[in-house]
Amino acid sequence: MPSAIYPGSFDPVHNGHVDVATRASKLFDRLVIAIYRAPPKRTLFTVEERVALFQASVAHLPNVDVIPFAGLVAPDLARQVGAGFIVRGLRAGFDFETEFEMALMWRNLDPEIDVVCLMSALQYQFVYSSRIKEVALLGGDVKGLVPERVMTAMSAKFESA
Amino acid sequence: MPSAIYPGSFDPVHNGHVDVATRASKLFDRLVIAIYRAPPKRTLFTVEERVALFQASVAHLPNVDVIPFAGLVAPDLARQVGAGFIVRGLRAGFDFETEFEMALMWRNLDPEIDVVCLMSALQYQFVYSSRIKEVALLGGDVKGLVPERVMTAMSAKFESA
Amino acid sequence: MPSAIYPGSFDPVHNGHVDVATRASKLFDRLVIAIYRAPPKRTLFTVEERVALFQASVAHLPNVDVIPFAGLVAPDLARQVGAGFIVRGLRAGFDFETEFEMALMWRNLDPEIDVVCLMSALQYQFVYSSRIKEVALLGGDVKGLVPERVMTAMSAKFESA
Amino acid sequence: MPSAIYPGSFDPVHNGHVDVATRASKLFDRLVIAIYRAPPKRTLFTVEERVALFQASVAHLPNVDVIPFAGLVAPDLARQVGAGFIVRGLRAGFDFETEFEMALMWRNLDPEIDVVCLMSALQYQFVYSSRIKEVALLGGDVKGLVPERVMTAMSAKFESA
Amino acid sequence: MPSAIYPGSFDPVHNGHVDVATRASKLFDRLVIAIYRAPPKRTLFTVEERVALFQASVAHLPNVDVIPFAGLVAPDLARQVGAGFIVRGLRAGFDFETEFEMALMWRNLDPEIDVVCLMSALQYQFVYSSRIKEVALLGGDVKGLVPERVMTAMSAKFESA
Amino acid sequence: MPSAIYPGSFDPVHNGHVDVATRASKLFDRLVIAIYRAPPKRTLFTVEERVALFQASVAHLPNVDVIPFAGLVAPDLARQVGAGFIVRGLRAGFDFETEFEMALMWRNLDPEIDVVCLMSALQYQFVYSSRIKEVALLGGDVKGLVPERVMTAMSAKFESA
Repeated sequence: MPSAIYPGSFDPVHNGHVDVATRASKLFDRLVIAIYRAPPKRTLFTVEERVALFQASVAHLPNVDVIPFAGLVAPDLARQVGAGFIVRGLRAGFDFETEFEMALMWRNLDPEIDVVCLMSALQYQFVYSSRIKEVALLGGDVKGLVPERVMTAMSAKFESA
Repeated sequence: MPSAIYPGSFDPVHNGHVDVATRASKLFDRLVIAIYRAPPKRTLFTVEERVALFQASVAHLPNVDVIPFAGLVAPDLARQVGAGFIVRGLRAGFDFETEFEMALMWRNLDPEIDVVCLMSALQYQFVYSSRIKEVALLGGDVKGLVPERVMTAMSAKFESA
Repeated sequence: MPSAIYPGSFDPVHNGHVDVATRASKLFDRLVIAIYRAPPKRTLFTVEERVALFQASVAHLPNVDVIPFAGLVAPDLARQVGAGFIVRGLRAGFDFETEFEMALMWRNLDPEIDVVCLMSALQYQFVYSSRIKEVALLGGDVKGLVPERVMTAMSAKFESA
Repeated sequence: MPSAIYPGSFDPVHNGHVDVATRASKLFDRLVIAIYRAPPKRTLFTVEERVALFQASVAHLPNVDVIPFAGLVAPDLARQVGAGFIVRGLRAGFDFETEFEMALMWRNLDPEIDVVCLMSALQYQFVYSSRIKEVALLGGDVKGLVPERVMTAMSAKFESA
Repeated sequence: MPSAIYPGSFDPVHNGHVDVATRASKLFDRLVIAIYRAPPKRTLFTVEERVALFQASVAHLPNVDVIPFAGLVAPDLARQVGAGFIVRGLRAGFDFETEFEMALMWRNLDPEIDVVCLMSALQYQFVYSSRIKEVALLGGDVKGLVPERVMTAMSAKFESA
Repeated sequence: MPSAIYPGSFDPVHNGHVDVATRASKLFDRLVIAIYRAPPKRTLFTVEERVALFQASVAHLPNVDVIPFAGLVAPDLARQVGAGFIVRGLRAGFDFETEFEMALMWRNLDPEIDVVCLMSALQYQFVYSSRIKEVALLGGDVKGLVPERVMTAMSAKFESA
């Protein structure tokens, strides 16, 4: 039965990510959420924190694992964990062409790994980690957009800053 | 194991559709290609012809069926054939917002049926049935864009017209 | 104080239209909803029916009127009813460039009439009259997307057809 | 030295088309404006009228010809008139993906004919023949958007209707 | 009567901004132009300079104020100054989806503050502060795109650098 | 006969750039590839390296030169080298609105220099220098996307890092 990876920065995980992971967990036998250790932009949370926050949000999904990764392209990671598919969350507000360009590059690297796009629920269509951090930093309320544990973690980060 | 429908007009099926169906056949236990009997635009081929042309193109895929449908929305059709997913082919040249709008309407109708988007290979990213018919009617060569049987069927249509 | 027109086909009015009209009624002293008698596409409802359905949906807004119009461009209509602004509802799924092109043509016709764009609530971002009719015709449930009176009116239309 | 065709419906020619043709006439040794006899949508003007209106607008450009065409795809027409390039006018408000899809289909038909895209001046970026006809029919003033002769021709059409 | 804020970085103000502010001043009883003290990108001008440059450009509009702001989200600022609306300038060349995402986040934070989008004149549709600075730095002439005082201020900055 | 410049960062040149340069060399009498010495983003290769890599890739095209440039806007560079046109490569995955905005700014600076857009072949439509560097850094194979010499040069860079 098919397995998949769901790669991303997840800095931090929000409810749109959790929604996509939940949908993917029904489609695949096994889902590996793979968190980039060092994405191009500086992160608010360390990779260990990002893994822990996502793990807590999908603890109730038995066929989902969360791991950090570094130093290899997504299709190579898929092969390494024995997955044949890469999951992407599509959003109305997302740069769709970027998504295409990445998927076609991945296929060029390994034509046997395929890309599957899932859409999060309407209420998360315009939810972005970067905007959430910006708003939370300014004291805005992001309840309903991120898991509670993530709200607490952001508050702790911004207070200690 | 998950099943899916892949609904469309397929007037006629082209190699991008065959590519998406092939990819979907690896992801799902069973795939039902469902062809609209009477889409809003007038079709070149009857629904029986469209079913036959797609069937011939996926005859080598044991877990794929092709059926006509009419008079019900896609999520209801999915339930009727016991499928939990609806497959959509994404193309760079496709109106992505239309895709979103339809998927969100479907979710509104039946939140338990989910939408899965797959991308055809690069060489089919800009292939459309409407352009193919336009070019074939003017005597242009569409080899490589449609199965051979579809080329023959289009020639027959245009000659008899 | 400023007045505005909100022109459209409204065939039929849906909850996104009602939402935009409600928002506009707070911004303008007076709002005139102006319904095209004969838009390019064939309508399901007559202009009298479309006026009556929108009127019923905004009966609780004291500063809003609903009228039919024909035979003149939107800026001329605005002048005729003494309005200085034209309201447009923006949607994520809307063809934004079409909106721009129309607004710039209107300005070219009458630079003193300005265009004001409002965004409907998230739950109506992907709601279109054309899709609603398509789904209702196929027996799909569009509760929550249109006023109840519109649901009844569509059922009556489709039964008598 | 390179020659080109500039194909379209031009129903009727507007100032954005004239602007693109003028720019192209500086780039190419010879430019052939090729007007579709029977485009998919019904036209307001006959092909003879459309040829005459465009001819009058480029009479001052010595290296530009205007011809009607029918029954063949654009790259075949290019070969027939000895041109190696097809000119397209790009507009901000244009469906860019449609443009891509058409260009790639043309290359598929004849890889030796290339597509060259030119941009009209800012003031014509949002000018469309369809909107111009719509506005002119309703009595709106389109001065500055079309050549004077086209304004007269439209008035004559609408009066006789 | 309704009031609004018009928030932005305005580094520096250009004629498109002045145009939007002028249009908004006719729609609202009072308009507060609110300039971010510390936007994510480094600015060329200090917030005091940016406030002074915008003030000089709207000095003739009696119902418009220009203030700096920091440390709070736009809807909170609107409440603080007693405004019920947030003005955004829409441009053809703008990332419309970003605009949507921000507006929907703002509504999530405070559903009673609404977003109003206005379009600048055609000649400013493709004018950006970032491109203006880039061109001015290279000695290109940006006359007609920014108020004269801004041209002088940029020259001074680049000479002293 | 017309000449053109083809400006860019080209860090490094990829096969899509070479394809556009080859197409342009057939359209223009003389083509000058002009490489920005110091684009806003930090480059992997020095301008001398970027010039050498592009030169090696177009050595077989007799009417093409490659030069570095700095400190002036593109239309001024065009004038300086005696060219009347600026070539841009259009890609499906490219931010088309950015392209428009830049072209209109250039026209504003010098209305006599025109912009000509060419499309690379389908297989390079989604190829970007930034993605290529990212993939190459992670050990992914970019064969077929860049000239061999560029592959070697990237390996050398990443090994010495």
